Amino acid sequence: LQVEEHQKQGILDPVMKTAQILIVGDEILSGRTVDTNSHYLAKELFARGIRVRRIEVVPDDIVAIAQWVHHRHGLSDIVFVCGGIGGTPDDVTREAVARGVAIPIERNQEALKRLTKYYAGRKVELNADRMRMADMPVGCTLIDNSVTTAPGFKIKNIYVMAGIPEVMHAMFDAIKEELKGTPVFESEINLQVGEGEIARHMIRINDEFPDVELGSYPTLDPKRGYKTQLVFKAATQDRLKAAVDRFDLLMKKNL
Amino acid sequence: LQVEEHQKQGILDPVMKTAQILIVGDEILSGRTVDTNSHYLAKELFARGIRVRRIEVVPDDIVAIAQWVHHRHGLSDIVFVCGGIGGTPDDVTREAVARGVAIPIERNQEALKRLTKYYAGRKVELNADRMRMADMPVGCTLIDNSVTTAPGFKIKNIYVMAGIPEVMHAMFDAIKEELKGTPVFESEINLQVGEGEIARHMIRINDEFPDVELGSYPTLDPKRGYKTQLVFKAATQDRLKAAVDRFDLLMKKNL
Repeated sequence: LQVEEHQKQGILDPVMKTAQILIVGDEILSGRTVDTNSHYLAKELFARGIRVRRIEVVPDDIVAIAQWVHHRHGLSDIVFVCGGIGGTPDDVTREAVARGVAIPIERNQEALKRLTKYYAGRKVELNADRMRMADMPVGCTLIDNSVTTAPGFKIKNIYVMAGIPEVMHAMFDAIKEELKGTPVFESEINLQVGEGEIARHMIRINDEFPDVELGSYPTLDPKRGYKTQLVFKAATQDRLKAAVDRFDLLMKKNL
Repeated sequence: LQVEEHQKQGILDPVMKTAQILIVGDEILSGRTVDTNSHYLAKELFARGIRVRRIEVVPDDIVAIAQWVHHRHGLSDIVFVCGGIGGTPDDVTREAVARGVAIPIERNQEALKRLTKYYAGRKVELNADRMRMADMPVGCTLIDNSVTTAPGFKIKNIYVMAGIPEVMHAMFDAIKEELKGTPVFESEINLQVGEGEIARHMIRINDEFPDVELGSYPTLDPKRGYKTQLVFKAATQDRLKAAVDRFDLLMKKNL
């Protein structure tokens, strides 16, 4: 096994852009909180023609985050980091990302201006801890936060966003227009049989349509019967239809 | 930055056992399916005194899985791999885990016996694809599956289980008695203030109680007000209480 991290060359990878997601948070690893951000991003990105290749959850640990960013940010077109950008001592993501790309931190003046205005309007003191939320890598671009003001940022190909889902969604809304990939075509077939009935047909489709991705997802229905969802993905509608039609024929003739 | 993967030495790591979770599935990365398995495991393990240090989601890719297992299985006490153990061509987890620990695959006779009996009872053919579900690393221990029979397995410190949640839960039930860590004590305080109000108190607690872990989790309530949940963790009830009492005092005196 090679020492380098392996990135799967999926059939549609040359067509779609790729992304990775880092979720930061002890509370997710201890089972206290359910991470909904990675699913939200995966779904939104796939719809935009950007394919997520990895999702990882790490603790609120500056070295763990910095190393992940350092090793991984070059391995896909876009990277998202969610969580740990608040103003308490366990919020280390800003500094960790900066370390991961070897860029110094500075107090971002535009971010500070926004925080100053926001807290003045609420008659709350902008104390030293809150001011830390404006500490960001030199040269980053701010990501607007329409919910609680404290901005996220983009540095290199890395979008750094909040962990609170409502805030993360607002930040995603602020950047989504610039996230342009190449959407692929998808079709699903729902079968009332187990996977074992159709595996041989899948092998044939894989052989005959090397440009079509095929996945099978079994579920158990309430009566504990088998159900299988087959998902076809292709770069063109024509190839998608050809593969689905071929599969239908194999099923009908029970080849 | 060092090239090796970093494992955080959390305050309570020497007390608790550690675990990592690998979730296998293209369908999660494309946002089609929500992964509930990692949360289920994280919660169950934490309650048993086992701390999850990493969760990663990778595609149905034999090399990606094998490399993850190869590099990571030595970095924690226990490893869980969920998904990709069915009988279709995209189910590559069995072979990938075997490769990751450099142990050959064989047709496990006990697993085959169980599958034979199960399919005979349902008058379904145990075809070549279904038989693949009995291919496992030499020397593994089976993990019972009370739902759909096809077993998971344990090899070295790695538990390999199904991706279908109902089946994974049944497999977890079959192994949970052997999962014994050291549960720690936890206490939470729910505050109606933002994190910025309490960051300085947290810094003092961190200084004064180096053996107590402290996390702060902000949420937005329906009226968009701030709420913060503080979570204290300690190896003994006494130390937990001392830290919580000290925090209460700091809040009251507004030090």
